[in-house]
Amino acid sequence: MNYSIGIDIGGTNTCFGLVNENAEIIFQREIKTKNFPEIEDYLTELVKQIKDLISHCPEPENILGVGIGAPNGNYYKGTIELAPNLPFKGIIPIKNMLEMLLLNEGWNLKVTITNDANAAGIGEMIYGAAKGVNDFIMITLGTGVGSAIVSNGKMIYGHDGFAGEVGHTIVEIDGRECGCGRKGCLETYSSATGIRRTALSLLKQDNSPSILREIEEKDINGYTICEAARKNDALALKCIDLTARMLAIGVANAVAVTSPKKIIFSGGLSKAGDLLLTPFKAYLEENLYPVFRGKIEVELSALEENNTAILGAAALNY
Amino acid sequence: MNYSIGIDIGGTNTCFGLVNENAEIIFQREIKTKNFPEIEDYLTELVKQIKDLISHCPEPENILGVGIGAPNGNYYKGTIELAPNLPFKGIIPIKNMLEMLLLNEGWNLKVTITNDANAAGIGEMIYGAAKGVNDFIMITLGTGVGSAIVSNGKMIYGHDGFAGEVGHTIVEIDGRECGCGRKGCLETYSSATGIRRTALSLLKQDNSPSILREIEEKDINGYTICEAARKNDALALKCIDLTARMLAIGVANAVAVTSPKKIIFSGGLSKAGDLLLTPFKAYLEENLYPVFRGKIEVELSALEENNTAILGAAALNY
Repeated sequence: MNYSIGIDIGGTNTCFGLVNENAEIIFQREIKTKNFPEIEDYLTELVKQIKDLISHCPEPENILGVGIGAPNGNYYKGTIELAPNLPFKGIIPIKNMLEMLLLNEGWNLKVTITNDANAAGIGEMIYGAAKGVNDFIMITLGTGVGSAIVSNGKMIYGHDGFAGEVGHTIVEIDGRECGCGRKGCLETYSSATGIRRTALSLLKQDNSPSILREIEEKDINGYTICEAARKNDALALKCIDLTARMLAIGVANAVAVTSPKKIIFSGGLSKAGDLLLTPFKAYLEENLYPVFRGKIEVELSALEENNTAILGAAALNY
Repeated sequence: MNYSIGIDIGGTNTCFGLVNENAEIIFQREIKTKNFPEIEDYLTELVKQIKDLISHCPEPENILGVGIGAPNGNYYKGTIELAPNLPFKGIIPIKNMLEMLLLNEGWNLKVTITNDANAAGIGEMIYGAAKGVNDFIMITLGTGVGSAIVSNGKMIYGHDGFAGEVGHTIVEIDGRECGCGRKGCLETYSSATGIRRTALSLLKQDNSPSILREIEEKDINGYTICEAARKNDALALKCIDLTARMLAIGVANAVAVTSPKKIIFSGGLSKAGDLLLTPFKAYLEENLYPVFRGKIEVELSALEENNTAILGAAALNY
């Protein structure tokens, strides 16, 4: 049996696992990314953990390689570049660094990297809701809005490995300021931070009653807004409505480009479930170019959140 | 030597040619599409012309097939579907109809169809400005805004064959009414009809002097607006500016999805050349997600307009 190591590097945690060819994670660990401001220290710890993980493999000679999903991970260059939410800054040639460190430990393993959204997309394609689907878009609604786009059964990396930034398509000219330096990006509206911005702005607009006024400002987030919306709080429902509408416009525009069969949502805010999906689907139909209407399936990820990324990263070795 | 027949079906004319494997059009003709309200009459005439064209082929036994580019042509289904600018309405199974008619004449030729923008994109990829480029977007600025998107060296058709509608991405929420029934589509701003709308609207806004006031309303079009702009007419320059800005936002959004190396423009309005491309490039850089800045080449099609589509359609047979 073949095995593969999958690593999901996030701003807070790095989760990794040993995956067999039946897509079973047979051993799993995590370390705190944010505890390692220096990439060298981080990789030293990671290699120590990988050695331990390999020691749990029934047939270590059958390990195909190491796959990594990371924010701003570049498939072509093997780098992590200017990732705003990771402690290590600049351009990190992580593929070469990790291959070298593993070789020093006697393990000649190929390292492959892609960005976190693409890794999740590959996980979804091989094991999840996109199994057998040749054309789909996976959207991750987390702190930001990530995306992975598969067309003709292949991940679209683009000429430079950075394709799939639906979260940074402009949905409103001169709209909200985005962390990327522009205005009106989808993720300023339809991410966990986006819905919080909507809530804070609506709360300041007038004095209409809302459950959210009883919550400390720091605790107003996707989760508490959804909770309030489920109790029919008018202001919280407005937040969901704007989130869904902007998301639908951004997704409808991406559909016009690649015409996917399925849209799959994952990430924290997708846990809102039908509360978000029902208005999203209605707005999507309204905003789709007519030829695409009534054709597109919208689903939540079928995989556990951390597992999708580990499985997707592991699948990079195939 | 192999030969291929390429047909470019437009609302006004149908151009077709016999193309050899060196991409030379060795015989070329056209018929008036709009003279044939019934598809049967149209195809009867087309088959007559194809027979004549075949009679000009030095080795008719080496004709590989017939390729067609047509508005709303569907590569997977072999149909033309609900094309607003063609005389024949509904869903036309043109592939099967034409194969049958040719067979009746003793010619067993395979017919392949795609939409006109995709055919032009294939022409550009095989013979033109996108030769050797694996990731590009071709934008046709005509009556509407068409597009063809190539990723990993393959045309993106999407799950249903209708991908590549950058002209129908929404660039302005609740913006101009579009022929497709929605509002704010790119083509309502940045097509030949879009720039005319801009001019008419600016002319009505106030009484500022403009060369365009001396022209009959029916003659205000992409060509006359560009002519006025070249004479530094302030109102005409405003039209160009809005056209370029909206186009840049739509293209920047498509870039965020597929990360192309090149953007190639063709079509009547692209003849504005640097008058349009210079502001477009500036707005594009401004509106690109930072990771894509400074990387993307913008070019005009290197092929003659009609030829691109005929060559692209012919290339469908390879």
